[in-house]
Parts: sequence; C-alpha cells; structure tokens
Amino acid sequence: MSNQSKIPVAVLGATGAVGQRFIQLLNNHPFFEIVALTASDRSEGKTYAEAAHWILDTDIPDAVRNMVLLPTNTTALNAQAFQYAFSALPNENAKDVEPAFAAAGVLVFSNASYYRMSKDVPLVIPEVNVDHLGLLKHQQKARGWSGGIICNTNCTVSGPAMSLRPLYDAFGVKRVFSVSMQAVSGAGYPGVPSLDIIDNVLPFIKNEEEKLNQEARKLLGTLKDDHIEDAELAISAHCNRVSIIDSHMVTMSVELETPATPEECARVMREYRRKELIGLPSAPAQAIVVRDEADRPQPRRDRMTGNGMSCIVGRVRAEPLFGNTGVKFITLAHNTIRGAAGGSILNAEALQI
Amino acid sequence: MSNQSKIPVAVLGATGAVGQRFIQLLNNHPFFEIVALTASDRSEGKTYAEAAHWILDTDIPDAVRNMVLLPTNTTALNAQAFQYAFSALPNENAKDVEPAFAAAGVLVFSNASYYRMSKDVPLVIPEVNVDHLGLLKHQQKARGWSGGIICNTNCTVSGPAMSLRPLYDAFGVKRVFSVSMQAVSGAGYPGVPSLDIIDNVLPFIKNEEEKLNQEARKLLGTLKDDHIEDAELAISAHCNRVSIIDSHMVTMSVELETPATPEECARVMREYRRKELIGLPSAPAQAIVVRDEADRPQPRRDRMTGNGMSCIVGRVRAEPLFGNTGVKFITLAHNTIRGAAGGSILNAEALQI
Amino acid sequence: MSNQSKIPVAVLGATGAVGQRFIQLLNNHPFFEIVALTASDRSEGKTYAEAAHWILDTDIPDAVRNMVLLPTNTTALNAQAFQYAFSALPNENAKDVEPAFAAAGVLVFSNASYYRMSKDVPLVIPEVNVDHLGLLKHQQKARGWSGGIICNTNCTVSGPAMSLRPLYDAFGVKRVFSVSMQAVSGAGYPGVPSLDIIDNVLPFIKNEEEKLNQEARKLLGTLKDDHIEDAELAISAHCNRVSIIDSHMVTMSVELETPATPEECARVMREYRRKELIGLPSAPAQAIVVRDEADRPQPRRDRMTGNGMSCIVGRVRAEPLFGNTGVKFITLAHNTIRGAAGGSILNAEALQI
Amino acid sequence: MSNQSKIPVAVLGATGAVGQRFIQLLNNHPFFEIVALTASDRSEGKTYAEAAHWILDTDIPDAVRNMVLLPTNTTALNAQAFQYAFSALPNENAKDVEPAFAAAGVLVFSNASYYRMSKDVPLVIPEVNVDHLGLLKHQQKARGWSGGIICNTNCTVSGPAMSLRPLYDAFGVKRVFSVSMQAVSGAGYPGVPSLDIIDNVLPFIKNEEEKLNQEARKLLGTLKDDHIEDAELAISAHCNRVSIIDSHMVTMSVELETPATPEECARVMREYRRKELIGLPSAPAQAIVVRDEADRPQPRRDRMTGNGMSCIVGRVRAEPLFGNTGVKFITLAHNTIRGAAGGSILNAEALQI
Repeated sequence: MSNQSKIPVAVLGATGAVGQRFIQLLNNHPFFEIVALTASDRSEGKTYAEAAHWILDTDIPDAVRNMVLLPTNTTALNAQAFQYAFSALPNENAKDVEPAFAAAGVLVFSNASYYRMSKDVPLVIPEVNVDHLGLLKHQQKARGWSGGIICNTNCTVSGPAMSLRPLYDAFGVKRVFSVSMQAVSGAGYPGVPSLDIIDNVLPFIKNEEEKLNQEARKLLGTLKDDHIEDAELAISAHCNRVSIIDSHMVTMSVELETPATPEECARVMREYRRKELIGLPSAPAQAIVVRDEADRPQPRRDRMTGNGMSCIVGRVRAEPLFGNTGVKFITLAHNTIRGAAGGSILNAEALQI
Repeated sequence: MSNQSKIPVAVLGATGAVGQRFIQLLNNHPFFEIVALTASDRSEGKTYAEAAHWILDTDIPDAVRNMVLLPTNTTALNAQAFQYAFSALPNENAKDVEPAFAAAGVLVFSNASYYRMSKDVPLVIPEVNVDHLGLLKHQQKARGWSGGIICNTNCTVSGPAMSLRPLYDAFGVKRVFSVSMQAVSGAGYPGVPSLDIIDNVLPFIKNEEEKLNQEARKLLGTLKDDHIEDAELAISAHCNRVSIIDSHMVTMSVELETPATPEECARVMREYRRKELIGLPSAPAQAIVVRDEADRPQPRRDRMTGNGMSCIVGRVRAEPLFGNTGVKFITLAHNTIRGAAGGSILNAEALQI
Repeated sequence: MSNQSKIPVAVLGATGAVGQRFIQLLNNHPFFEIVALTASDRSEGKTYAEAAHWILDTDIPDAVRNMVLLPTNTTALNAQAFQYAFSALPNENAKDVEPAFAAAGVLVFSNASYYRMSKDVPLVIPEVNVDHLGLLKHQQKARGWSGGIICNTNCTVSGPAMSLRPLYDAFGVKRVFSVSMQAVSGAGYPGVPSLDIIDNVLPFIKNEEEKLNQEARKLLGTLKDDHIEDAELAISAHCNRVSIIDSHMVTMSVELETPATPEECARVMREYRRKELIGLPSAPAQAIVVRDEADRPQPRRDRMTGNGMSCIVGRVRAEPLFGNTGVKFITLAHNTIRGAAGGSILNAEALQI
Repeated sequence: MSNQSKIPVAVLGATGAVGQRFIQLLNNHPFFEIVALTASDRSEGKTYAEAAHWILDTDIPDAVRNMVLLPTNTTALNAQAFQYAFSALPNENAKDVEPAFAAAGVLVFSNASYYRMSKDVPLVIPEVNVDHLGLLKHQQKARGWSGGIICNTNCTVSGPAMSLRPLYDAFGVKRVFSVSMQAVSGAGYPGVPSLDIIDNVLPFIKNEEEKLNQEARKLLGTLKDDHIEDAELAISAHCNRVSIIDSHMVTMSVELETPATPEECARVMREYRRKELIGLPSAPAQAIVVRDEADRPQPRRDRMTGNGMSCIVGRVRAEPLFGNTGVKFITLAHNTIRGAAGGSILNAEALQI
C-alpha cells in the first residue's frame, strides 16, 4: 500500500506501556498509519515526547514524537479523522470510551478486558479463531453501530490457546492443569515494585486465573451465527509473577479426549498453519514453534521468536497422570507483543483478508 | 548437654554449598559438636578458612575457621574420632564413601541421593515419617554395619511431602499436579550461571521431576518391618529454576480420595503436629504454617519461617478440575535448610528421642 | 529498664517503608515503647495490620498489630501521650508536622530531609558527631520549644561519613570522588518499578548527589556554640540505582591533607571507637568493619554486619591519582537500618547518655 | 562483494561466549565469510551445533550449524585455508596459538589481552586510533611474519576511550576518576555464578582496573613510526560487577588540561566523526551518542544503540572538584559487541579502507 492508501488509525491511551508497544509496532506498518494519539486529560495538548515516560528499548519513533495528544473521547475525531482505534485503555475507561467510538463509526481493536466476554464481541487470536471476526456484523446490527469492538485476549491465555488449538482439533481436550510464570511488564508501568520481585516470586495475580479458563473456552469455541458456543474444556491455573521483563511461560498438563503420543502432539502443533493469514505483516512464519532441546523455551532467549508473535512450545512429553490421553509441555509467548499490542494489530490485519 | 557430652560429628564435603550450611547450622548446636571436616584431596591439609570459598551471608564460625581439613575417607577417623557424619558429598563420592563410614561405625546423615531409594535405607523428614528411622536396625543387620546411612530428601520434595502428610492421613491423596519454581542455590556453587537466570527462567532441572514422585511415595509410605510400602499416590511435576537465592515454591493441584473443603484441608495442615519432635532444637514450632493472605507465601519474605524449617502453605482453595475431591495451594520450603542441611540435622536429632 | 520506665514513643508515618523499619527495630527495645502510630487521613482509625501493606521479611510485631492508627498531627497527643516521635514522614508533611510536635513538647527524631541543613538542627550520626546533639538546647531556646527536632542523614551519606571521620581526624580530607550503587529500598515503596531495574542500572537519583556533599560537610563539621562550622572538604558523587534490595555501596577516592599509607588508613578506620556510645542497644560493637578480602564487602552478604548498623569498608588501597595523599576504598551501609530507622533510633539512644 | 570475493575467515575458540558473538555478527557479513571454526581438542570433529552450548538470544546461524570443528592450531589450515582469524581464545592459549597463525600468514584479530601491550602490536578501536594499524607492517618486518596480530581492547575501556578521544583532542585530559558497573557477560560463560550476583554487587574484577589505565594510554597515544607513544593521562578505576546481562557503564570524572564547559564537552563528543570509517558495515552512524535525558543511558534500554557499536554518553555536567577544567559524565558500551567481537570485526573492516 502507498502511504495515501494506508488506513488512518489512532492509539487510545497512547502514553502507557501497551500504548507504547502499539506505537512501536505500528511504526512503518504497511497497512496502517498513526494519525492520532489520545491520552488522559492531564496530558492533552502536550506533544507525545513531552507527555510519555517512554520505557521501551527502542527510541520513540520520529513520526509520533511531536504529535499533539488528543483527548480520549470522540471529540478527538473532530481534530483528526481515523478509521481504526487501537485501544490500550484501562478497563474503567474502556467501558464507556470504546462503545462511543464504535458508535461514531470507528473499529476499535481493544486490549482491555471489559468487553471480551460480551456475547456479540469477537475475542480473537487469528491463528486460533479468525472466523470469529464474523461476529462483528451481528454486533453492528444489534447495537446499531457503523464501527465496532474486536477484543484480543488476556496476555496469559495467548500461549495456551494457540498451543491447544491443534490438539483440540486433532484429539479433543478435556482438562488442563496449568501454571504461569509471568513477566513484570504484564502489570504495566510502574506496575510491580522492584521490592516485590528481586529475589522473589509473587504467587498471585488478580483475576488472572479465572480469565485463563473463560477466555480459552470462548477462543476455542465455535461461531454459531450470532454467538460463540464455548469449547467444552476446563483449565485450572496457578498464576505467578517472576523476575523477567517480557513473556509469559505456562506449564501445561493436558488431558486429551482420545489417545495421542507426545510425538503426535508435537507434530500437530508444529504443522499447524492457518493459510488465510499467510502474508499478513504481523503473522509469524510459524504460529507454533516446537523446540526439541531439553531446556527450551526460555523467556529471555526465545521470546522474540517470530518477531515476538510465535507461540513457542517445548518439553513435549507424556503426562503419566492421564495415561495414554495425557501430554505435558510448556508454552511461551511474548506478553506485550503476542499477548497485547501485536495481537490487536494482527486482528486488524486479519480484517483486510 | 554439656560440651563434654555432645556427640562428636564430622561434615563430609565441608567446603561446598551444602557443607557450609551444615557448618552454619551446627555452630553452637546443643547436641552435636563438629570435630572433623573433610574435603577433596585438593584441599586436604589446609585450614577450612583457606580452602573454602565461603558464600553464606554470615561469616565462617570461629570454631571451624582454623580446623585442618581431613581426607574424605575413613582414614579421617584415625586423625579424629566422630560418631556421626553429615554428608554433603556429591553422588559419585557418596556411593563409596558413605558405606565405608557406615561400616566403620559412623552414622551417616546423607544429603546425597544415591541411597535414598535403597530398600533398607530410611528416607526421612521427621514431621512426615520419623518412624521410618526404624529401618536402620534392619540395615545394620543386613549389611553387618555398626553405623548406617539415613537419607534426607531431595530439596524440592520437602514442601510437598510435608503438606501432603496431613491430607493423606485425613482424606487420602490420589494424584498431584505440581510445578516448582526453584532457587538457584539448589544447584550448588558455582551452580547456575548468571547469564542463564537474569531476566530468565530455566524450565528444566535434570532428574528432578522423577525424584519428586518417587521420594514422595516412599516418604508417605508405611514401614512394614524391614521395608517401606510405598504410598499409593502419583505426583506429576514440571520443575523450573527461577531467579531467587533460596527456597523452592511448588504449586499443588491435589486430587483427594474423599471429599474435603479447602477450609478442612487448611485446618488439618495447620493443626498438624508430631508430638515426639517437640523440643528438638531444629524442629519448628509449627511444621506447616498456613497463611491466609492472597499473595503469600513469597520466597524472600517467608523462607525463614521457623528458622527456615517450616513448610509454608498458602492460597488454599478449590481445585475445580477435581470437583469436591480437589484442593489447590502452594508450598514453600527453604531448600538448603529444610530441604538439605537442616533436614539432615533434624534427622540426627530425631534419633535422640 | 522495666516496661514502666520505658520512654513512650510514637512512629509518625508508620505504614510506609521506613515506618515499618522503625516498628521492626523498636520491637522489644530496652529504652523505648511504641504507644502511638500515626498515618495519613486515609488510614486513620484502622488497625495497623489493616492499613499497612507490610513489606519486610519478618512479620508485623504482635505489639502493634492491633494498634489503632492516629492522625499525623498533634491531636494524636490527646489520644495518647508520648515523649519521642520517630518521623518517617515525607518532606512535604515533615515541614509542618515536625515543628508542631516539637512545639508541643515532643522530641522528634526525623528521617526527613527538610530540616537537616537548618542552622540550629543537629544532623547526627552518633559515631561521627554525637556532640552535635548539643545544638538542641539552642534550638529549643531560639524557637521557644520544649521539644525539638534531631535529624538523621540521607541514607547514602552514612557509609561515606562514618568512614571519613577517622581519616579526617588523623590525616585531614580535602576531596572525595565517590560513586554510589544504591538499593531499591532507598526509594521507598512502591518506589522503583521492576521494569526499570531488572537487567538495568538507573544512573540518576534526584537531589542525591548534592546531599552527599552538603550533609557530609555538616556531619564532619565542628560545633561552635550555637551552630556548626562545616568541615572543609568537598565530595563529588555519581549516584546510581542497582538491582539490590538493601544497602548502599559507595566507592571512595580520597585526597588526604597529609600523606598516609593505605595500611595506616585501614588502621585508623578499624580502630575507630566512640567510647560514649558503648552499651547503647543499637550501637554496633565495631562502628567501622574493615575487611581484607579482595572482593568484600558485598551488599547481600555483608549488609547485616553489626545488625545492619556497622559501616563496612573494603579494598583499602592506594589512589595513584593523588600520590602519597591518596587512598581509595569502598563503603557499604544498610540504607534502611543504618541510613534511616536504625540511625534515628541510635540518635535517640545517644540522648540517654 | 560477491560471495566469491569475500575474505575467508576462521573463528578461533568458536564455542565460547565471545566465539558465539563472532559467529552471530559475521553471519551474512558483506566482507567476510566464515570457512573454519576451531575449538579445544575435546570438541574437535563434532559439528558446531553438537559442541556449542549456545547462549545467545538468536539461534545458531544455519551456515555454521553443521560445520565440523577443527583443532585450534595451524594444522587447521590444512583442512581449510583462511586469511583472517578472529580469536576468542583465552590468554593462556592465545599466547602460543596467535603467533603461530601469524607466522603461517594469517591476520589474527584478537580479543585476548596477551599481546595488547606489546610494543609492535596495534591495540585498536578504529574510532579512536585507526591509524595505529600502521604498526602492523613493523610487526611483520620485525617478526618475519606474513600475517600478524591486531588486538582489540578490554571491554571496559571501550566506552571511556571513545568518549575521551574528542575531549583529549580538543581540551587535553590529565586525570580521570572512573567507576565501572559491568555486565555478567564480561566474565564469559559459565562466568559469574548466579549465587554471587542476585541481590548483590561484586566490587572486584581481577586485573581490570590496571587495564583500564594502561590500555587507554596506549589507545589515545601517538603512532611514532614503529611504536606508540602513550598519551599523558592517568585513569583510576573501581571496577564492579552488577546484575545486568550486557554492557558496561562507567562513570567519568575528568580533569581537562584547559577549561571547557559541559556544553562544549558534550558538543565535541556529539560532533566527533572519523570520516575514513564511513560506510564500514560495523561502524555506527554515530560513534558517540550523547543523550540529554537526566536518567540515560541505561544498560538495558540503550546498549543496542548503533547495533551495539556506539558509545553512549549521558549526564554531561560540571565536575566541581576540578573547577573550570572539570567535567563529569557516564559512558555505556556493549561489552560483547563494541567491547569484544564487534570491535575486532570493525578492526578487520578498517583494514579494507
């Protein structure tokens, strides 16, 4: 696409940790061009560089450095028209702001959790359920919107859901015992105090364990005309915060519906492809990368696989407690790329198919 | 006991990480007095302070600073008689050295894994199975030893085994899905390279997952005259190394034999007492400390509970995947105190009952 | 002292990080008894256990767990009389609150920086300048207070000032080039975000470099009746935050007035005693502990030397850039004990001499 | 260059930490093509992927994965001819091996310290002293070699030396008080034990402080026909290891020969260019990047500036202890790229000018 034909987009809540990732990943994007950034009232009218306490390891892109921040409400559209909005808003703001933009004709790709479980809102990881985007037209009709809301998932569920998709399709999945070791960036900025994490583990993350089960059931579910029929599986989780910057690792002990060897499980994960996504800028060459080494994946060494968009799986082996229907392994996914900003951008790309 | 009546003891492999903990914990011990320290040939003849690269956070006790290191074989007994030996030897040395000392009349309290699963060797956490010490006389008879070998457990199994004891007794335990987050000190010194653990998790620890199941079954088993009948339960584990100095945290998803609420489970753990251990110097006032806060235990803040000898349990809640026979929680135990040197010392103390 | 004769004290700002240290260190103190805790309006009326997010590695002392929080103003004295107040208030509150209590007859031992450089306020590290407490009577007279304010120092200056005292007395000190590597606890709680410090160093701490010079000059200065004549020395600092929980390490390249060898410098530091402090509960047996190992002190291994109240010095060697008047070394001091709560408590103890 | 015309190169000591960086940075290099990898006898005959415990955050390049390791001596040349050798050998091996290859006609670009201070061996950071490469012909003549040895610097000196070059040229430099905070990767692999660095700082690195002074004097010195006349400046250092993966940060308190303001110092550093290096593949667009933010550079966020080849400077401000000839600032440089493998590769590139 030439610059003229790029879709004009906004980032809502652009100064926070996820907003920064959206900006970083949208820089020089072939489909989208940032034309507006919004922030809280406190920052309105400042340039982005003045207002943002930039925390990423690359510098602020020049294209947005001097962009003046707009208010996070639909009056922003008066200043600058845009078709899509990538929302990095906290839940309490997303609740009112996202529907307002949707009603005003904007497609909102949301990273907030507020509407994820709404019946007519697609909750999408394209590699898992790109067809769920079909809900959008029902949402628009039901709510009388010309725009709409499309949600990405909780960052912790992205690895497990991606790895379960081929297993669910091939063998069925009944139960999963999972334990997460999550990066501090998942809590945003300032987020986790360093006094809480140096030489320590935090064995609790609010609401996280419930989401893992709920969202995975919807993600792996089936689109039935105007709603999603949840997948029949159950995930139990222990969620922990550990001393790593980025990426969430999740151990998986899976009970399948039908027998399968670890080799068969590794094979279906490794061979999993979603043809319709081929060529999308943010789609990784391989959705699921299965590693054979005994001690991989590791967060620091593997999180950038597929530019941070792959789900990395390792240690696929038998789960003896489930006999011949058991398999266990670990998944790793970059929480602020795959599990947040990158995921929403891929959702928007998938809409161009 | 006066100093004269203290039992003279040696530490075998005294310069390594676990050897140092033995020395630290035996300093001014009311029952035992260190009279000999052994090390590899390379260090023999040097004073302890010269040979040891001391890594603990308290200084080398004055009592051993100038003690001259003896060879790690029974000729050490010519230089200095001792009744007990606390063994911090690596497996490959323990294999030959520990039986030799046992044959020479020394009671060896071993931290090595080599003899743990031997039929006539007691594998003991006193709070779990102090009665298994009864195997010792069969070992002595069968092997014609006046001494003997008594093993402690793998550091990772100590928390899970202690927490399971009251559950097993009250409700029965069938299956446990567990995931560990283990301290770097568990790998000894130099052990885990810092390049492997800063901003990282290592999702593999050699042989660790198997030991957790095997040792727990023996620990929770029943003494039948001259052998242990393993407990009928199965533990599946994912073992991980995380960036913490000391203590292993283990998540537990437990399937009980009979229904029990989380409250009932918490109660039996909290009320668990082993009366015969009361008053032993290393026995913590409370074997299992159950915390009610949503985010405890935490390694850095809780590992020294009970002077590092308690098993700390937290987040006791329902395990929905096992219906009314399910409970999940986390355990924390200090790996080089409870799970290594302190555990062996308590084994030796328990023999004085 | 019996309990009846203990001095009743309050902790102002008791729920924060320094407030917690005051409570921890005052528990079972032989001279003082906590009778009141104050907090912000938000917490007033709650029990301490309800209001405080306790972050230390020992539990909340039972003696204060159910104490009801009072407001941080002199109306607290109506609820509960106390003679001393240990102030963990932020500067903006300290400004008004501390004088108000002083006017109401309370001796305030402050950890805030607001009054440190005031002409009539003693800024004291007892081992460095216990005689400066003599300013108090001038303060009381000048301000018409029956109480008063006595300040401790910035946490970073405590190690350097303690180590410089004997050098200054013996050889004179002209210039010091210093660089700090400071613990995250120095920034309070929540303080330093973990995203800023894992695999990172922060090379800037607001106002810290200036304080190091200013406060050291006052600390090492001379009491002249009603004011302090600053010491004639200059300290230049680079202050950095590194990934450690507690204790500040500071490198020192010192230009002396008169020639001295590293051995002589080490000797005067090692032999330094302040006789009048002997027997005070918080005074360490050795004010300055000089270590001979090539790689000590180290923060995690040495910070608790002297119960966290010693200044630990290491690597005393020639500073070639200053010829025969140069010496360089490192200092380590526990920032929240020696450099904060413990320091103020020792100031209060010193007043009992 | 087409592949045919690329210079065939070897990496000596290819399996270690620096060897891995050489391989990573030489992958798809426009000038050089790896044709041989050598390792210790233990690994000889294995493929690279079998023998190397790869520790970097990108995977082993396919081009070397199945390359069979050769012995680290000149018999390797029988198996495979190469013109250049990048040496990642430890000093004890470099001593004999590097001259042997040089005598056999190979140009050795060494990362070892053994020959750095030899009179006829160029010690080069191209941005600092590319003209010192002129020593090579004297070396070849004096030693009768058709090849030769060209050294890069100690990783810690690269940032300070680069930042001092423009200051030295513009204002003269007399003395520098410096303190380093160095990454664990500087100690190789396994290198620093994690037990030594979590929640800790190591205040000593063997031989490092001396090298900083020696090497900087040679680097900033003047080529006088067949030798280097050392620069007349003196650097005093305190070297510390901190908990970061890559990059060394060094604080600098500089005494200039002639007065200069911080702004003037920042300007000459920022404007510093070495025209002859423009266009070399590894030369960063800007040799010295001066940042204006109060809290930059930071290791994790800034080390990859200029693909890890820039020297990043920050906090340029007055050094009051040196009056109007004083300036202080911090430098940051990536230790295993700029200060090791990348530096040697740029040396080899500079020879193509």
